[in-house]
Amino acid sequence: MKSFVQLVSAGALVALSLPAAAQFAKPEDSIRYRQSSLFIMGQHFQRIGAMANGRIPFDAKVAAENAEVVANMAKLPWAGFGPGTDKGAPTKAKAEIWAEQGKFREASEKTMAETAKLAAAAKTGNLDAIKAAFGATAGSCKACHDAYRAP
Amino acid sequence: MKSFVQLVSAGALVALSLPAAAQFAKPEDSIRYRQSSLFIMGQHFQRIGAMANGRIPFDAKVAAENAEVVANMAKLPWAGFGPGTDKGAPTKAKAEIWAEQGKFREASEKTMAETAKLAAAAKTGNLDAIKAAFGATAGSCKACHDAYRAP
Repeated sequence: MKSFVQLVSAGALVALSLPAAAQFAKPEDSIRYRQSSLFIMGQHFQRIGAMANGRIPFDAKVAAENAEVVANMAKLPWAGFGPGTDKGAPTKAKAEIWAEQGKFREASEKTMAETAKLAAAAKTGNLDAIKAAFGATAGSCKACHDAYRAP
Repeated sequence: MKSFVQLVSAGALVALSLPAAAQFAKPEDSIRYRQSSLFIMGQHFQRIGAMANGRIPFDAKVAAENAEVVANMAKLPWAGFGPGTDKGAPTKAKAEIWAEQGKFREASEKTMAETAKLAAAAKTGNLDAIKAAFGATAGSCKACHDAYRAP
């Protein structure tokens, strides 16, 4: 278990790394914002997956461009999970997000860290490195979805 | 009127500047992708507007962070306006987008150029420069909405 100090400092880290200081006019906007950024992230992530899994030919430049978008998008959704945004529009977000804020924050940090590593791997143009980073990133997506997204 | 060569070279420029080589599974995904990226861009743009218009105190760091997101997001939506994506989900996109592809491309380039200038202005921390760039960017948004978005 993390200490209070560790959690607070983890929170400060997230605040620093979020370009989107949360300022939404209404809960619907927060919900739409987080769904939009996760959707865009998923679209670009899939394109890297198609190369990592050999479904389409590997193109290092395209992989790097998509990975950069993924890493940029991964910074955004979390600001959309503010207090009071558990309802207001259709959402699959589970109540655990607000009940376990420290754990949810850790999951968000893990995703940001893995996507940053994926972008770095993609810049090298090494397909094996991309495959490894893609798998680790996919794992962080899945862990968060399993815990915090309703089916 | 632009020559064919100018249009082709403008098209090549857009292709180069788009990290999102369009690869959507279905038209709904394209529509959701462009709406998502435009929504996120708008949310961050509003935050700069609130400072430019004096509704909230100016914070140079927050303005720069938001402007960077705006400039990054401005590169994305256009890939979502591919052939056959005029329908498939509720959309305000007008038929002129596909009938006047050269002009629509110019409008998208204008928006990318203005948002890049806004991000550069925001990095300087000079509020007057930000106000000027914000106005020019807002003008490019409005021009495109007036021509290509149904009310």
